[in-house]
Amino acid sequence: MEKQEWGFKENHVVHATAALTMRSILEALMANMDEIGTGKSMIHLGHGDPSAYPSFRTSTIVEDALVEATRSARFNCYAPGVGIATARSAIAEYLSRDLPYKLACNDVFLTVGADHAIEVLLTVLALPGANILFPRPNYPTYEAEARFSPLKVRHYDLLPEKGWEVDLAGVKALANDKTVAIVLINPGNPCGNVFTFKHLKKIAETARKLGILVIADEVYAHQVFGEKPFIPMGVFGDIAPVITLGTLSKRWIVPGWRLGWIAITDPIGILQQTGIAGSLTSCLTITADPPTVIQGAVPHIIENTPDSFFLNINKLLKEAADMVYKRLKEIPLVSCPYKPEGSMFAMVKLNPSDFDDIADDTDFCMKLAREESMILFPGDAFGLKNWVRVSFAADQKVLEDAIGRMKAFCLRHAKHY
Amino acid sequence: MEKQEWGFKENHVVHATAALTMRSILEALMANMDEIGTGKSMIHLGHGDPSAYPSFRTSTIVEDALVEATRSARFNCYAPGVGIATARSAIAEYLSRDLPYKLACNDVFLTVGADHAIEVLLTVLALPGANILFPRPNYPTYEAEARFSPLKVRHYDLLPEKGWEVDLAGVKALANDKTVAIVLINPGNPCGNVFTFKHLKKIAETARKLGILVIADEVYAHQVFGEKPFIPMGVFGDIAPVITLGTLSKRWIVPGWRLGWIAITDPIGILQQTGIAGSLTSCLTITADPPTVIQGAVPHIIENTPDSFFLNINKLLKEAADMVYKRLKEIPLVSCPYKPEGSMFAMVKLNPSDFDDIADDTDFCMKLAREESMILFPGDAFGLKNWVRVSFAADQKVLEDAIGRMKAFCLRHAKHY
Repeated sequence: MEKQEWGFKENHVVHATAALTMRSILEALMANMDEIGTGKSMIHLGHGDPSAYPSFRTSTIVEDALVEATRSARFNCYAPGVGIATARSAIAEYLSRDLPYKLACNDVFLTVGADHAIEVLLTVLALPGANILFPRPNYPTYEAEARFSPLKVRHYDLLPEKGWEVDLAGVKALANDKTVAIVLINPGNPCGNVFTFKHLKKIAETARKLGILVIADEVYAHQVFGEKPFIPMGVFGDIAPVITLGTLSKRWIVPGWRLGWIAITDPIGILQQTGIAGSLTSCLTITADPPTVIQGAVPHIIENTPDSFFLNINKLLKEAADMVYKRLKEIPLVSCPYKPEGSMFAMVKLNPSDFDDIADDTDFCMKLAREESMILFPGDAFGLKNWVRVSFAADQKVLEDAIGRMKAFCLRHAKHY
Repeated sequence: MEKQEWGFKENHVVHATAALTMRSILEALMANMDEIGTGKSMIHLGHGDPSAYPSFRTSTIVEDALVEATRSARFNCYAPGVGIATARSAIAEYLSRDLPYKLACNDVFLTVGADHAIEVLLTVLALPGANILFPRPNYPTYEAEARFSPLKVRHYDLLPEKGWEVDLAGVKALANDKTVAIVLINPGNPCGNVFTFKHLKKIAETARKLGILVIADEVYAHQVFGEKPFIPMGVFGDIAPVITLGTLSKRWIVPGWRLGWIAITDPIGILQQTGIAGSLTSCLTITADPPTVIQGAVPHIIENTPDSFFLNINKLLKEAADMVYKRLKEIPLVSCPYKPEGSMFAMVKLNPSDFDDIADDTDFCMKLAREESMILFPGDAFGLKNWVRVSFAADQKVLEDAIGRMKAFCLRHAKHY
């Protein structure tokens, strides 16, 4: 057939945006591995997904709930964009346990995991000229979704010397009359920190002064194992309006089920008055929905998962965090200034000048993947050059092996070795 | 506390876009119902979701597959953006049965239902200045997603007098060097038509001349019950590159499970060469995923659902279509020029001048909801004023009742009645 000119071509904006995601970076690290060459099977400490380890298997209650929802045949139908009422109510009741006020069904919006919640929020807040405050380091999905929206991004610092607290002076200096919101991740990803009641209150007061809303990313809610309790940002919703992001993924160890939520934790009703709640409803009318059959399982999951399940997961995470923090001290050329108290992560600092042939954190992670079949996440992708994020959501044996590989790798690449 | 000025506000673009969706329109119709006042329970013929009727319940094989995937605990983890290989391969094999060439795992991309597939495709194709050809009447999600993309939309006509065939002369007149693709829905939604082999070939040849790709929306694939067989557009992928959209929703009667796919049905590999396939991969790296646990059920569903299930569903749809088409003739003031041969829908024409007090199709549907607790979908939302779409995916008894209500309504509102 004759040669044909085609009117469509590749989309480089989409490529550039995808390159910011954890997935693309993890795929590049995987592609650089050589399990046969090293004779070592992969150790993946690059993400917060321990679901493959038997010790981290989700509760049978969670499995039972989805089986029942499936067998009932009541959840094969389309659902409203905001989600089915029974699931929304169960989550509202669940979140209300830790708040000084009660959430209603209509305060909760279901999403296809927390990443979709981020997409929806940035879409709703993207008004002409508006800007939003992100933390540095930050969870990369925020950066990727912002690329797809007209929102301008400004970064405030989390301060390692202060246990990764928010640089509030920096926040005040960054914000202007076009600033709509500040994003806060607590328990911290990537830093594994937990904010105190006092610090959260200060953040709320700062947001109020600035006239902005607080987006509280609480994907790792209740997964704390240090001195500090988990305090939901919604506790301060009467100071500044708070939108809380949550998910079943981490606490119930089903990240692949993609069931997340956006909750309006705003007792004064500012987000209703200003039409933000209505805009969320409209946005969810257009975008993807979590499957109705999984929504149908939510009430059973929320109401019946025993505390013993959560206590055991937190016990495993605490033991893992303690061991990793302690053993990292054995490794020259890296330091972990802050002992993780929450989430599934520790941030580890490198000093490239101590290495013979490691240019930076990305080079470190690429060579570690190549030589040790081991995945860590480069801090550069979070906005923090020459740090690496270590996930400790894994079996103790695997973590011991990982620390051994990391130590051997560092010694092998140390200067004058 | 002192009065506070807030820097965020309602997003009217999102509202305007949501207003185009079927969901918003159905919600408005529901809100106008008065079941207590009419003493009649709702009859919903406004969408393609018969899953609530016992006669349309999905196969136990489908339920078994999700139960097994859940119990295996192998699908609680994150999945690749393009989907898990076993599910992609099963769908590739399934689609290949009806094609003169074989699809590979990498030709299939999993999405959160077909609506998400539309969102992804319009995102990938949205290059500066590009335009896309949509049918009139069209499935509203295309119009809503296009509002969110820089793509310019041009509408070609489907011709009722020719059994809703594509106006090919119109397509040639509309396209220019900035046209990237033509969207084709077969079996037809909203028209219930089925395209012939000959007509599909002509469309492919036209697309080749114009240098554009064909987006074949085959959400209702194989759901045909007239003279014409279902021919997948991919059969003509060697004439012009074809991207096929599909889903479990309709053929397996699980619309709420949100498992759809995009398939590259392009044996010459033009979509690989031009980077469209790579752009799809990048886009899926960023957007929402179908839950891994549902992806895990796909191979079992595709390989084991018995033909008897599909034959029975098509038998039910044929009986329903025949009855509705016949009984509509009893109703003065409406006409159904084309007997449905596929999908779940018939398009019915109104002549407002025959009515005493019905301004148009939207007014017809709103008053029908109010007075008869019955939902039909106004054609205006598809781009076809003074038509209404009737879904016949319901029990015979319900359809009989529906026709009765429609008849009473029309007689009550007829001129000089």
